[in-house]
This record gives sequence, C-alpha cells and structure tokens, in this order.
Amino acid sequence: MTDKKTREIAELGEFGLIEHLTHDLNLKQKSTIKGIGDDAAVLNYGNTSIVLTTDLLLEGIHFNLIYTPLKHLGYKAVVVNLSDVYAMNAIPKQITVSIGVSSKFSVNHLEELYEGIKLACEKYNVDLVGGDTSTSLTGLVISITAIGEANKENITYRCNAKKNDIVCVTGNLGAAYMGLQLLEREKNVFTSINDMQPNLEGYEYILQRQLKPEARKDVIELFKELQIVPTAMIDISDGLSSEILHICNKSGVGCKIFQDKIPIDLNTQKMAKEFNFEPIIAALNGGEDYELLFTIDVADFDKIKNQPLIHPVGHITTKEHGAVLISESGHTIELQAQGWNPLRNKKSEE
Amino acid sequence: MTDKKTREIAELGEFGLIEHLTHDLNLKQKSTIKGIGDDAAVLNYGNTSIVLTTDLLLEGIHFNLIYTPLKHLGYKAVVVNLSDVYAMNAIPKQITVSIGVSSKFSVNHLEELYEGIKLACEKYNVDLVGGDTSTSLTGLVISITAIGEANKENITYRCNAKKNDIVCVTGNLGAAYMGLQLLEREKNVFTSINDMQPNLEGYEYILQRQLKPEARKDVIELFKELQIVPTAMIDISDGLSSEILHICNKSGVGCKIFQDKIPIDLNTQKMAKEFNFEPIIAALNGGEDYELLFTIDVADFDKIKNQPLIHPVGHITTKEHGAVLISESGHTIELQAQGWNPLRNKKSEE
Repeated sequence: MTDKKTREIAELGEFGLIEHLTHDLNLKQKSTIKGIGDDAAVLNYGNTSIVLTTDLLLEGIHFNLIYTPLKHLGYKAVVVNLSDVYAMNAIPKQITVSIGVSSKFSVNHLEELYEGIKLACEKYNVDLVGGDTSTSLTGLVISITAIGEANKENITYRCNAKKNDIVCVTGNLGAAYMGLQLLEREKNVFTSINDMQPNLEGYEYILQRQLKPEARKDVIELFKELQIVPTAMIDISDGLSSEILHICNKSGVGCKIFQDKIPIDLNTQKMAKEFNFEPIIAALNGGEDYELLFTIDVADFDKIKNQPLIHPVGHITTKEHGAVLISESGHTIELQAQGWNPLRNKKSEE
Repeated sequence: MTDKKTREIAELGEFGLIEHLTHDLNLKQKSTIKGIGDDAAVLNYGNTSIVLTTDLLLEGIHFNLIYTPLKHLGYKAVVVNLSDVYAMNAIPKQITVSIGVSSKFSVNHLEELYEGIKLACEKYNVDLVGGDTSTSLTGLVISITAIGEANKENITYRCNAKKNDIVCVTGNLGAAYMGLQLLEREKNVFTSINDMQPNLEGYEYILQRQLKPEARKDVIELFKELQIVPTAMIDISDGLSSEILHICNKSGVGCKIFQDKIPIDLNTQKMAKEFNFEPIIAALNGGEDYELLFTIDVADFDKIKNQPLIHPVGHITTKEHGAVLISESGHTIELQAQGWNPLRNKKSEE
C-alpha cells in the first residue's frame, strides 16, 4: 500500500471519510427520521422520538493508560456518549458497553473500569442494558452506544440555526485541552522507575475537565424549565471553531463570534500562560470540553441572559458573511476547523 | 501483573465476566424491559418494543484479514448483529457502525468494507444511521449496534422454555466451523510469496458459511406466516451445546437432544472426514452458524413438522434430568458448553 493512499484517509478527516463512505445511502425505514450527520440518529418509535449515538474509544488514540485512571476512563467513556444525547435536547435512558481487553488486563482492572461506568450510569440515571466482552490482541477498546428519549418537537438538530439567532456556549472552554497538555508534560514522571510523583497540585480543575468530564444534563433541564428549544445545538468535543462550523454548514448560515465573550476559566488561563500558549486557541481548537454550543431565537434572549451556566458569544449571520471571530483588538478572523482529528492525532507517542 | 490474574478473565469466560461485572446493576428506567442476559436488550418506547444489540469485532480475534475479503467482513459484521435481533423474534430496522482503522488501510480498503456493510443493509432492509471512524494504533476494529422492532407479545426470550416443548434448529450446523478449519489449513498458501493459490474448489458451501453467513430473516417471516411464537429462542453463534445450555439455564429446565436429528450438511460431513474430525463436534461446539435454536409448544408441532427450514432435534425436560445428548448408539451424554470463547481463543496466531 502506498503512502499516498494512506494519507488519503487522514486528509479526508473523520467527517469527510464518513461522508465519502455513506453519501449514497438510502434510508428506507419509516422509523428513521435522521441518519448520519448530527450528534445522534433520530428514530420514531410509537409516539416518542429516540436518539441513538455511538462512540469508539481506542487505547493510544483516545486515551493513554499511563495517566488515565481506569475508573475515570469508564466514567468519561459513558459521559462522552451522553453528551451527544443531550446535544439533541434529549434525555439519555440506556447504554450498551462493549469492551476488548488485552492480556495485560486482570479482572481487577475491569472492575475499576466498570466502577466508573456504573458511577456515570448512577449519576446520569441511565441503565446499562447490554454489551460484549472480548479479548483484544493489543490495546483496550471501548465502544459505547447510548439511547435517549425526547418529544418530537424538542429534538434539536444542527441544521436549523437562522439569521440573527443568538449563539451561546455553556460553562467554559479550553480547560480539558490544557489538562491534556499538563498530563502529557508530566508523562515522563508517571513512567519513571523511581517513586517520583508528578506535581499536579493546584491543577485539579483542568485535570478533572480532561480526565473526568461531565455532560450538560443541567443545561437540558434548564431549557425545559425556561421553556426554550434551541434552534440548533451540538456538543463541543472538537473545539468551538469546528463545532460552530458544523452548525453554519448544516444550517446554511454564517456567524460572528466575539473573542471577548468566550468563557475561559482562570485555571485554564493560568495553565496556558505557563505553556506560553494563547488560551483562546485552546477554546477554539482544543477538544473534549463536552460543553454545549447552541443557537436561540432572539425572542428567547431575555430568558437566558442572567443564567450563569449560559454565555452568549455571538450571533448568526448570512452565509455570505462567513463564519468569523471578532478578536479583542477588533480584527475579523475567519474561523477554521482545526479541532482534534482522530484520524490524524494520537494521545500517545509510545 | 501476575499470570494468575490474567487467567482469571479467561476462566470467567465472556458470560461469567459480564455477570461478574454487572450483577449489581439496578435497572431504573421505565422503558427498560430486559437488560443484560439475552441476545438483545428490550426497551419499550410508546406502544412498540425495540430490541438493541451490539457486537465488537477485533482483528486477530474475530477475523483474520489474511483470508477474509473486506467486503465479506463488512457483510458478516452486520449479519451477526441482525442475527441477534432475529433471535428475539424482532425485525431489524437500523444499525450504527463504528470503525477503527490502522495506518495500513487506504480509502479503497474502507470502500470495500463498506460495500459489504451496505450490501447487508440492502438485503436485510435496514438503515445505516450513524457511527464513528477513528485511527487504530493496531488492528481493525468494527463495532456494530442494531435496533429492531416487534410487537410486545412476540418478543421471544431465552427464559420461557417449558417441559415438553419441542426443541428445533434451523438450516444445518457445523459448516462455518469446518470452513474456518479449511481456511486455517490453507493460510500458509495465502501468505506464500509465490503466486500459488489455495485450492478451494468444491468447498464453496462451507467457505460461504464461514465468510459470508446469512441471518435467519426467512425463519422469522415464516413464524409470522405460521402464527407461531416460539417459547424461547437464541441464535447459534457458539455451537448448539452452548446455546441450548443458555436456554436451559435461563428457563430452569433440562433437555434431551437426539444426535441423529441434528442437521449437518453433506459438505460439512465431507470436510470433517478429510480432517478426521467428528461432524457432530462441529455442530455441537463449532461456532458462527447463525442459525436459530428455539423451542415451541407441542401444540404448534403440526405447523412446523413439514417445514424444510426447521428441524426438531429434541424436547425440553425438567431441570433434574439435565441437558443431555442421546448419541446415535443410544448413550446419554451430558451437554457441555465448549463453544468458542472470545476471551480465550484467537482466529490468528500471527
């Protein structure tokens, strides 16, 4: 096989590759409302819409066992799937978990992993209803599928943002990415043969955002309470730039995002400074925040303007205006998808 | 990590391990009807029952790319999941497909794999509605989830077989296992540097059963036509012994299976003879037949007795009588689960 061919996969990228392989699919089932192309598929069964999403996590690509406690990994593996369900404005109800384990794993290791999985099920009130366990010749493989439920009229896609809608994000951005940078820097200490422990004191917040993230159940509950249905929504797993471009592309609109409105935690800023790194880059292009990015009709602005969880960061424009960031100095910068590409990047260099 | 710990996982086996890790689960969702412990989970949404099943296929464990064409592999990966849906007496409607690919894969390779996936979707009339694509540091990883639909009263579990029920299997058994033995024998020829081709002429049937199996859509349709709802059902992925023991254990019954009733194709017998291997062992302990094993009330016997797809092989007894095979010579032999254990066995020795 030539290098050229190998490169093709990485150059297509995850979304390009899926599009390339599945563009000719016909959806034939009456129950299929939405197939590939959103955070989750949407199926109608009876009078209910269910959403279905799946994620594959591979050792060395999505996680590095050198610095990832198995319990946290199990927890995170569930949370990243639930985040996709919430991003459809649905409530997760069930998950299945399939695991492939290499021979270096003992029953104790699996117990730790499952402890995290069960903790997440408990916290987010979902049932673990099935799965599969197998040997893996090599690394740890975790595949989780989540099912959620919503009223048809509440399902929120990526494709219905419209001109003048307010663009909002929840929580803060870039922390998980800075947590990853810290763990990568301290990796050598983790693997050293003497008993040195990495000094992670004072970095708890960004480490937690990387190792044990939470999904935005609270925000979906808040929407219900405030009687808001966003016009479009996506979860921020690949950085704000990449995600707002998904919404703009699917909705056929542009957007104007203001740098000074993007919420970045002080801990993230401090860590970025230590690394001589612009925190805004972590927010725009870092991954794994699992916050929600959504758009709402301007008529709903009053409902969210004093909500501490929600930060308006810009508005939707027309397609011709492109998707742009207005920098703190007032410059207009075109947003580009430089998010984490699982077909190119690795979490491990071993 | 000690050898002792490593052994523990293999000794628990797939079902023991899942039981060990999940025995303390509480199912809390109203929509969860059946969790872990059958071919698929059963969820109630609206007035419909949906079934949910997932399978993880790993290179070197579940398939060997030396002799498995990618198109066949894609097809088979879908079919094994659909087989689990049919085993609940449900009709598959949607699947998701997650793939992890190593750098030796090109876009062309993925196209071949997806050609098989799409062909199976076409043939079995299911929609491919989602998935995930990622780099894998090592081998090819395929994780498929299938969703199916059924009326509540038609869902068939493993746990409701009762004394005097007739035990039936579909099609014939052991062919896929003999196909695998042939491929393993010819493996060296596949990998030799000269242009020798393995001589597979005359073995097409068993090879197809191994490389491109079908799921028993026709039998589920026949049940509907004959107005039969089996009392218990399971698909035969790990050999007849292992599967009938699942039904007996879950139903709290015993069974008597007659060796001379077990359907074994002439091609399977011929191949077994060449290998000096008892064909009955392939039927009892070989895997991957993807036929259905089910029990019906004696009152339904007349409906199936002349159906060429269906073979009565014995009947259900009480638990005290155990699960036994009556050999051709009239001996009573206790059935043992020696099916393919994915936590111990490998398809590849490379």
